[in-house]
Formats: sequence, C-alpha cells, structure tokens
Amino acid sequence: MRDFVNVNRRRFLIGSAGATLVTTTGIPVSAQDAGGAGLPDYVSWKEAGAFIRHSRQTLETKRGEIGLSAFTPNDLVYVRNNLPSMTEEEVGDPEAWEVAIEGVADGGTITLAELRKHAPDTVACVLQCSGNGRAFFDHETSGSQWSVGAAANVQWTGVPVARLVDEMGGVAGNKYFMTATGGENIPDGIDPKTVMIERSVPIEAMESAMLAFEMNGEPIPLAHGGPVRMVIPGYYGVNNVKHVKRVSFDVVESEAGIQQTSYRVRAVGEGGAPDQPSMYEMAVKSWVTHPLKDSESGRIQIWGVAMGGTEHLDKVELSSDGGETWQEARFVGPDLGPYAWRPFVLSVDLGPGTHTVASRATTVSGETQPRDFQPNHRGYGHNGWDAHAVDVTVS
Amino acid sequence: MRDFVNVNRRRFLIGSAGATLVTTTGIPVSAQDAGGAGLPDYVSWKEAGAFIRHSRQTLETKRGEIGLSAFTPNDLVYVRNNLPSMTEEEVGDPEAWEVAIEGVADGGTITLAELRKHAPDTVACVLQCSGNGRAFFDHETSGSQWSVGAAANVQWTGVPVARLVDEMGGVAGNKYFMTATGGENIPDGIDPKTVMIERSVPIEAMESAMLAFEMNGEPIPLAHGGPVRMVIPGYYGVNNVKHVKRVSFDVVESEAGIQQTSYRVRAVGEGGAPDQPSMYEMAVKSWVTHPLKDSESGRIQIWGVAMGGTEHLDKVELSSDGGETWQEARFVGPDLGPYAWRPFVLSVDLGPGTHTVASRATTVSGETQPRDFQPNHRGYGHNGWDAHAVDVTVS
Repeated sequence: MRDFVNVNRRRFLIGSAGATLVTTTGIPVSAQDAGGAGLPDYVSWKEAGAFIRHSRQTLETKRGEIGLSAFTPNDLVYVRNNLPSMTEEEVGDPEAWEVAIEGVADGGTITLAELRKHAPDTVACVLQCSGNGRAFFDHETSGSQWSVGAAANVQWTGVPVARLVDEMGGVAGNKYFMTATGGENIPDGIDPKTVMIERSVPIEAMESAMLAFEMNGEPIPLAHGGPVRMVIPGYYGVNNVKHVKRVSFDVVESEAGIQQTSYRVRAVGEGGAPDQPSMYEMAVKSWVTHPLKDSESGRIQIWGVAMGGTEHLDKVELSSDGGETWQEARFVGPDLGPYAWRPFVLSVDLGPGTHTVASRATTVSGETQPRDFQPNHRGYGHNGWDAHAVDVTVS
Repeated sequence: MRDFVNVNRRRFLIGSAGATLVTTTGIPVSAQDAGGAGLPDYVSWKEAGAFIRHSRQTLETKRGEIGLSAFTPNDLVYVRNNLPSMTEEEVGDPEAWEVAIEGVADGGTITLAELRKHAPDTVACVLQCSGNGRAFFDHETSGSQWSVGAAANVQWTGVPVARLVDEMGGVAGNKYFMTATGGENIPDGIDPKTVMIERSVPIEAMESAMLAFEMNGEPIPLAHGGPVRMVIPGYYGVNNVKHVKRVSFDVVESEAGIQQTSYRVRAVGEGGAPDQPSMYEMAVKSWVTHPLKDSESGRIQIWGVAMGGTEHLDKVELSSDGGETWQEARFVGPDLGPYAWRPFVLSVDLGPGTHTVASRATTVSGETQPRDFQPNHRGYGHNGWDAHAVDVTVS
C-alpha cells in the first residue's frame, strides 16, 4: 500500500515551494522582488529551504516545516515587514536604544539597558499576520497570498508594560488606547501618516503587553523588530510594533493610515474606515502540518498546531472524511498559556482512496472554528476549517 | 553609582571570551585546534560569537548567552563530540537511516521514515556534559575545562522507546541494561571498543527514553546526533547516543571503553573501572547568567537557570553575601517537567563593595546543591554553589 498525500488544487499551488506562485493580479510573485533567488540579505541567517518567498518583505514558512516542538525556531519564523527592517547602522548600540513613554504620570525615555533593570518576565504567544489564510478565500484579494505559514509560536522575554507604567506613576487621566510607534526612518517628502508603523490598541491590552528584548532565547533579530518590540499577546502581528521607539497612552487612536484605514474588516469592495473593526484579537484556529507528502503505509500520524487566540484550548478534533465524523486528537508537550499554540497528534489508519483531513479547535469557553469564513475585502482572519483541510490519497 | 560586575579570578580566566584560555596542562586551548579561528565547518551555522572554543570538538556556550527563554536555541547549544560528527555524505538520506532494535520479542530494523509512523511525543530536558563545571575543581583534570556552558535546555520530539518496545512484543527475557550504539565509522586498524560510542543505561531508563528526530523544532542537526538520537531524560549527555544505529536490551553492559572505564567517578589518581559509579543521573544544580558585565546602577536583576536533575524543583535561593543569607528567587516561564531547567530572576539592590552572588537550587524531594563538591579524578558532576558564584563589585 502506498499513500499519496496532497493538498487540494488551489492549496497546492499556494503551498508548494516548487510551483510558480501567481498573485491575484496575475503577476508572478518572483517578479515582484528584485532581490533574486534565495533569501534577502537581512534574513540570510534563516533556513532558505524552509520558506515560500512572496516578496522581499514577505516570507512564508512552508506548512511542513512546523514540527511538534513548543516553539518555532527563529530561523523558521515567517517574515512580514510593512516597512523595510531597520539596519544595524540605523539602530546603533542596541543597549542605547530609547523608548519614550508618554501619557503616564512620570513619563520619560528609557533605554534598553535601563529596561533590563526592571523585573523581567516571559510570555508565549502566537505571532500571526492578519492575512494568514488569505489564499483560502475564493474572492480576489490584494496582499500576500499566505496559506498557513504566516504564523509562529514564540516565547518573548521582556518587561511587562503594566509593571513599567506602575513604576512611572500610572496612566495619567482617562485614556482609552495604548499606542506604539515604530522607529523606522520615514524618507523626506512622504507624509509620515501614510507609511509610518503606529498602532493603537484598547488600553486593556496593556495588562498582558510586554516591551520585549528577547525572542526564543536570543536578542530579537532586527527583521523581527529588535532591539525592542511591543508584544500584545493574543493580538494579530501588526499590533506588535517592531523597533518600538514610543509608547503613548491616549484618548484617541493613532492617525496613521495603518490604524485608520488599513487592517479594517469590511465587506468586499468597501474601502477601509475607522468605524470598522480593527484586526486586534486573534480567533481560535488550527491546521494540519503533517503528512504533506508521500507516505509508505496506511498508518498515518497526523500532526498539527492549534491556538485559542486569547484563551486556552479545550480540544482539537480531526476528521478524515471532510467533516462527517470527528475524533479528538492528543495534545503534545506543555500548555504554554492562553496565547500560545499547542501541537497535536492523532494516529489514523486510512484505506485506499482520497481522504479530506480537517482539524477543528475549540476553546475552553466553547468557541469552535467555523466550517466556512465570511469573505472580507482584504482577506483577513480566515479560520474556517474546511479550507484549511488537506486531501490525502491512499492508493 | 556604577557597578563593576565580574567573576572571581579563576572563573574569569575560564569564562571570558577575551581572555587567553589555558588548560591545566599549560597548553593554550587555541593551540589544541588546527582548525583556525571561528567555528569549525560542521557547526558553521551556529552563532560564532556565542562560544568559547576549547577545541574543534568542544565548544562552550558563553555564560551570558543564556537568557530567560524556556529553551536554548540550537545555534547556541554547546558542542561536544567524542568522535567527529557524522557527515551528510556518511548519513545519506535521513529518512532511510536505520536503527536496529535487538533483545525484544519481535525485533528488527526501523528506518526514520518508519519511526514517524509511530505515535510521537516531546520531552524537555537539560543536555549537559558530565564534565560541565570541571573548571571549578581545584585539582588538575584532563578534559575540556568547561565552566557552566556545557549545558542547554532542549525540547526533543520523537517516539518513546517504551512504546516502540511494546509494539515489538516487549523486552525478551530478563534484561538489565538498554544499550545504544552510535553510527560513527570506526577506521580500520583501530579496536572498535577503544573508540566506539556505545552506552548502556539501567533498563529502568527505558521508561522515559526517546528515539528523537527533532530538536527544538528542527530536524536534529548532525552535530547534535541526527538523524536519530537516543535521549535519556535526566541523564548526562554521553548517554544520549548520537546517530544511533542500534538499541539493544542486554544482561550485561557494553564492553566499549566509554562504558567500562570512561565516565566513571573515582578518587583523584585512580584509574577508571566498571565497579565505579557511571555518569548516569544528573544532580540538582543552578547558576547565575546575568549580570556578568558592567551595570549602571545599584538595582540589579539577577538571572539564572536551575535544574532538578531528574525531579521538579521546589525553589531557588540567591545570596549576595557569599552564602550568609539567602532570598528566594522567582521562576520565570512555564514548568516544563522534571528534566528541564527553569530560568529564575531576583531584583536586588547592592551597595558599594564586592558581593559574591550565589544561587542554590532545591528539588521537591529536598535535595539541595551542596556548598562544595568532592574532587574526583576526571572532574565530573560539579554542582557546588560556592564555586559557581560570581563576584559583583559595585563602586
């Protein structure tokens, strides 16, 4: 007996390294990138073979590269930068990197070296692009055609924002947002608001937020926002502002375009506007990572990862008949908290034929992944289990 | 106020990257290695600046490179190979790598591809060389002069040996040892027993042992024993046989020299012999990792890591007066089980002067690190807290 394992046609075109990737505009992805083959210089330390290169700024981790270990090694973590990553020259001495804290009673500027004087902590969380799963929508969407690989499980080390704010006398007055500003240089002649990375989140997010300086046991690489990055556990990637140079507590949200009109969920065909939901909290989600290639016998160990978004998982179920029947999978490894993902496994014996293998996660409060996910203009937040399924053919 | 943080004289000579390292034989370490500066080719993917190079086969992670994250990234994990690591050419297709299982009812040979058909699991454990801490002994010892950096915290993914043995009908008859044999090629003309890597452990260790194929989320690098490595959680590194090609259940232990006479604990001046204790289970231990360099003010966040050996930790205490008084530190991050280490932190305010900062871990069963550790011929297993302390001078 011989298994032939594959994903469905649309999924295969998207997820395979060997296939030619074509965006919905019809332009081959490679043509969008003047950088040539291999990885761009600024992430040359990563595992070149582990990525699908959508553009110089967007590298997707191949589905099969995610194993059963708790965290995603830094050299396998996807790359997505709205602006080019800062360089070593721009950053200078990392220990002298400054973050201004504003909107607190006794604010000021703190360097990384000074931040290290405050009691540190760690937090494990999924880092996920708002557009992860965009490729699974049926309507045309602009933006990188991520399938599942714009996500990683990361442990951050840093200083909790709430602790720092407390030591600075607390938030001054009634404020509703916490705003983080990235340190990227904006070229002259461009209106900063159109390109700057500045995100506001509801002030409640401060309670779990962290000014992080370590990523999975190493100084945060510049491509991932070092020397200091704002981490908002449970929130989509864009809110985790890289190279953070300013944290401010405000009555209103940022006026930057990335806050006002981008990352807004709206109907297909509509423009972005501040009264639409912003991409804040992540939803329950899961996907299978193994097997994705030929297998030698009918016994298959299905692997995958599941996340609760902002809460612990209750269970993950697997179906090998397209969702007709489900079996509960077994979690592997430690529970790392409500913001992390958990790997899971299930042994199955599949007979000859094609089997649609789907995974469906449920949180402790009873939120379950939907079968389908409503289209939205930019293709954000897809967590429908049907589109994330893989087709396994056993002959 | 300005802190000057340093380790004591002997410690500094050993632990500092800038200092000239001299072994107890008087030979500068660099002269032992014909490989030149930087990292050897087979580990060129590691962070060159993070290591003290004792020889081509022995690279120690610098004390200050260990942060507060749960696991040690692969590119920071120390290197210690008794034989040169196998090459890609020698290994060939990793999925076709074969492991012979002997001494079970229904034994045979299993490839990595076949191993993947069995239900996997993960385990978090400290990987530590038997000689870690050797540099802290006062007597002269042969072997690499490791201080604290021949240790790492690793998550392995693989198949539990007990599960595999169960599926093979169980161990055949009464057996007392589980023996693992490395796949390294032994040159012609050399008695294999003198150089081969073959270690036997008490058969009880099978219950937690794993045939591992993933290390911290990536295929096990060859330098760390890929494609398949025997992992014995809670046991010293040497028992975790790399490139494992054979697992055997036996009445007597291996006849290899590495089992019979090496890794035996005996009095200084004695030769190794089979009736001496072998380096099996690790002991409770801890050490400070931060600060190890200049600091700007009297408030210091002391960081470190602590391990219980084979059981959970109860607590870690810190002293800044050489052991006169102790304060309990706070664990950071998740409890990853009895075989893993846990990072800890404590905020202290130190006045002007020199302070000896020591850490002392205690397990749930009440085992506490001793102040001092008895000398033994090869300098194995040092876990005395006094020698692991660092001197912090605040001016």
